[in-house]
Order: sequence, then structure tokens, then C-alpha cells
Amino acid sequence: MKESLHNYFLRYVSLSESEITLLFESIELKEFNKKDFLLKEGKVCSCKYFIVEGLIRSYQTDIKGNENISYFGIENWWVTNLDSFVNESPSIQSIQALENTKVLCIRKAKLEELYGSIPNLERAFRMITENMLIAIQRKDEIYMKMSSKERYNTLVSQIPKLSQRVPLFMIASYLSITPEYLSEIRKNRS
Amino acid sequence: MKESLHNYFLRYVSLSESEITLLFESIELKEFNKKDFLLKEGKVCSCKYFIVEGLIRSYQTDIKGNENISYFGIENWWVTNLDSFVNESPSIQSIQALENTKVLCIRKAKLEELYGSIPNLERAFRMITENMLIAIQRKDEIYMKMSSKERYNTLVSQIPKLSQRVPLFMIASYLSITPEYLSEIRKNRS
Repeated sequence: MKESLHNYFLRYVSLSESEITLLFESIELKEFNKKDFLLKEGKVCSCKYFIVEGLIRSYQTDIKGNENISYFGIENWWVTNLDSFVNESPSIQSIQALENTKVLCIRKAKLEELYGSIPNLERAFRMITENMLIAIQRKDEIYMKMSSKERYNTLVSQIPKLSQRVPLFMIASYLSITPEYLSEIRKNRS
Repeated sequence: MKESLHNYFLRYVSLSESEITLLFESIELKEFNKKDFLLKEGKVCSCKYFIVEGLIRSYQTDIKGNENISYFGIENWWVTNLDSFVNESPSIQSIQALENTKVLCIRKAKLEELYGSIPNLERAFRMITENMLIAIQRKDEIYMKMSSKERYNTLVSQIPKLSQRVPLFMIASYLSITPEYLSEIRKNRS
């Protein structure tokens, strides 16, 4: 279970045996059933979650009551509401499991303690945060240059078995297109 | 000149005298005239720029040839194209001075050296990057909940003397509204 997290960190930094032990002592395993909430709008997000198995969506409800999906998260992704986590403020987004989902969770106070004792962990999170920022900026940039069909193809390449794992109306919400138009794209693709 | 950068870092971390000396030895002052480019689309972004004086815009050109402004940057902001900076890839965005602009510039190789010798600098950039990510997410979240008028008011509160510093068509581009609609908002506001 924790092996996947260790391998993940190795992409960024090396950690000694004692650092890995300390890290694993500070992490909790949590399991969520399909449709359970990891975080509900209005609550403070107290954890960073590393997805070991499963799939989540992060979304917010707009003024018209529509649920707008900001991102999906799969295995080997960190998910959190960073604004709420950093500033200990109520989250504007909700995070919901779309499959039975296992996560490793680090609480904020623990993580800040760990940054003091494992400088390479702080380096890893500096780099992970940069990559998250890049991913969001790329999404905006790509969306400006790509057709809906290309955006759908990009998502298919990022999430294995996408259409079996995520309901079509949620994929449409993420792509900011109608479900009808998504069906048309899928029909022409096959 | 460097005082403002030192004060900026003090918001996040403390730095010793020798660390400050080392940091300042690694930084270059650059001056750009109004309309000069700090970065052009297609080039690799080799620096992080700290704005000491002036105003910039970061924008990209869409498939129809329109310039879409992602953000404005003013005094005490870091600006860069992070994707290009981290991955040493051609930038999709351009960064242009909208006023005569003075920046302090740290090159990528220098910064990575500094992370090794000043762990608190890496901590500061971990936190700065988190705040940038939060700012982008807030922009998306706020835009979903706010009317165009509220979005304009938010921008006015962020950039002092906005309408004297930034041409109206650029403000409209940033807000994703037409210049005509922006004029109407401004008329009703005054």
C-alpha cells in the first residue's frame, strides 16, 4: 500500500530508510465508498490525500446550481483543496469518490512537522505543487487552442478506461460541453 | 531596490545575513521599456522575475488570433512561465511590459544551486507556488460565482489605478467580456 507512495516520491527526491519510516508513521489509510465525500463544500480541508486506488472528482456548484467539475483524480495523484488546506478556510469545492477509493492521508500539522525533519519532503512538495500549477495552466492554455474533440481525446489519454469509470454527464461537465455534443464526438471517434 | 525583495521573503521565512548576501549575489536587475517583451511565445523562459516597479501582462494568442490575457503582474509579484521554466520547453505565453518595468531576475540553474544552500528559500518558494496555485483556482472559482461587474470590482481592488495603467481592451480581454460591456459597467459604477 505504502510502496506506491514511496515509488511516487522517488520520482522527485531520494529519502533515507529512517525518513521513510518517519513519513509512514505520519500517514493514515482511509477508505471511501463510491459517492462518499472526502471533502464537502463549506468544510475545512485538513488533509492532503494520495490516491492509492480509485477515482475522485473535485467540483463546485455555480450560481445556477450546476455542478462544475474542475478535475478528476486517479491513482498516484495528490488531491486536496489547497486554499482551504493552506488557509484553514471553508472549501468552495467538494471532493467525491466516483469509485470505492483508498487514500493515504497526511494532516496539515503533521506535514509541517515533517517539512522540518525531512527537507527532501519539502523539496518534493515544492516540485509537486509546481507540477500542479503547470497542469492547471496547461489545461487553460490547451483549452484555448483545442477543439472539444481534441480535449476529449486528451482526457481519454490521461484516465485509463475513462468512459467505463466516469458517467458521461460528468465528462461533459469537465469539458464544458453538453452531453449531447459529447455523444456525437464519441460516435464519430469509434 | 533589493530591499523590497528582502521584505517580500520575510513574509514567508527568515534569512540570515549571509543567506541574503548569497541571494543578492545571484540576482540580476533588468529594465524593460513599455511594450518590451520579458518573454516571447516560442522561447524558453529561463528566469523567474520579481517585479520591483512596473506592470506586465501574460497572454496567449488563440486559434482565431485573439490575445487572451491570463494575468497582470505588478510590484512584489513573481512572474514567469512556469511550464517553460521547469521543463525548459518553448513557452505558449508571452510576457510583455505595459509600463517601464524594473525586475530582479533569478536564473534557473542559480535558483537550484540556492535551494541547496538556503533551505528556507526553497520553503519560501514552496509557499509562494502554493499561493500562486490558490490564486489561479480562486480566479476560476470566483469567476464561476461572480457577475462581470463583481469581477471588474475585484480586479480594481487588486491593481491600484487600474484604468490609468491598463488599456480598457486589455481589461476586457482579462475579464472575457467585450470592451463595450466593460464601458457600460464602468459608467454604472461611477
